[in-house]
Amino acid sequence: MLGRLYESQECSAARALEVVGERWSLLILRDALFRGYVRFSDFERSLAVAPNILQKRLESLVRDGIMETRAAENSEHREYVLTPKGHDFKPVVMALTAWGDKWVEPGPAVFEHSGCGGVVEQELHCSSCGPVPVRRIGARARRRAAKKRSR
Amino acid sequence: MLGRLYESQECSAARALEVVGERWSLLILRDALFRGYVRFSDFERSLAVAPNILQKRLESLVRDGIMETRAAENSEHREYVLTPKGHDFKPVVMALTAWGDKWVEPGPAVFEHSGCGGVVEQELHCSSCGPVPVRRIGARARRRAAKKRSR
Repeated sequence: MLGRLYESQECSAARALEVVGERWSLLILRDALFRGYVRFSDFERSLAVAPNILQKRLESLVRDGIMETRAAENSEHREYVLTPKGHDFKPVVMALTAWGDKWVEPGPAVFEHSGCGGVVEQELHCSSCGPVPVRRIGARARRRAAKKRSR
Repeated sequence: MLGRLYESQECSAARALEVVGERWSLLILRDALFRGYVRFSDFERSLAVAPNILQKRLESLVRDGIMETRAAENSEHREYVLTPKGHDFKPVVMALTAWGDKWVEPGPAVFEHSGCGGVVEQELHCSSCGPVPVRRIGARARRRAAKKRSR
């Protein structure tokens, strides 16, 4: 039981949701992460989204440091590429997908290890004893670096 | 590279986001999953949310099969308890939290194995060769049960 740790709503999950919680932003990230899209025209065709909305969402992802722009080769267009902060959203998209696959219906794709082709799934892993079932996971206060005590 | 698998936007991740993508719904789920809250008054106090909004969000979670209501002991009030479908959102909240912890700032809580107290983290696990770094994960078409071929 978490007790009074979450007095502020500004927990990390809520902050992450501010980036990915908007539907188009999630779908842009999905296409960037798993289809490798970088061009405005590819996102536009894939998502069938109005260009002005797509533009706003891409600008928002750039402003948040999830994507950055670069000059495209042999073209005047800009490309939108994921930053490390953006690549790290992959487990979030995978967790959402796993839930939807199980509780809505199996989607069209599975995740694979691009090295060996094995199926990749998320595992909840205890530092002491290995895989843990979801019901056996709680939360406790993080031990803060004791700044004041060190004075 | 995923290719043309995701022609429809209705991938599993998007469907899951329809449930958890609204900020209050995520925070209700967080409180239910990690604080064990079941009472309207506990959610209300924790989230400082207007009662009519909280009521709508709880009803929506019940309608989606994420929560169900039951009679409280020694009280006329109803309680809101997670279903198995709701409990399975835990990895999604954990993935969002891990991202926020890394890229915004470390939040107030860590996840622990309630059996041994060890820290629990999500691991991306290949069925053939064990833990996989995020950059080495792609997507491919799920092999469908070949209904037509079997005729």
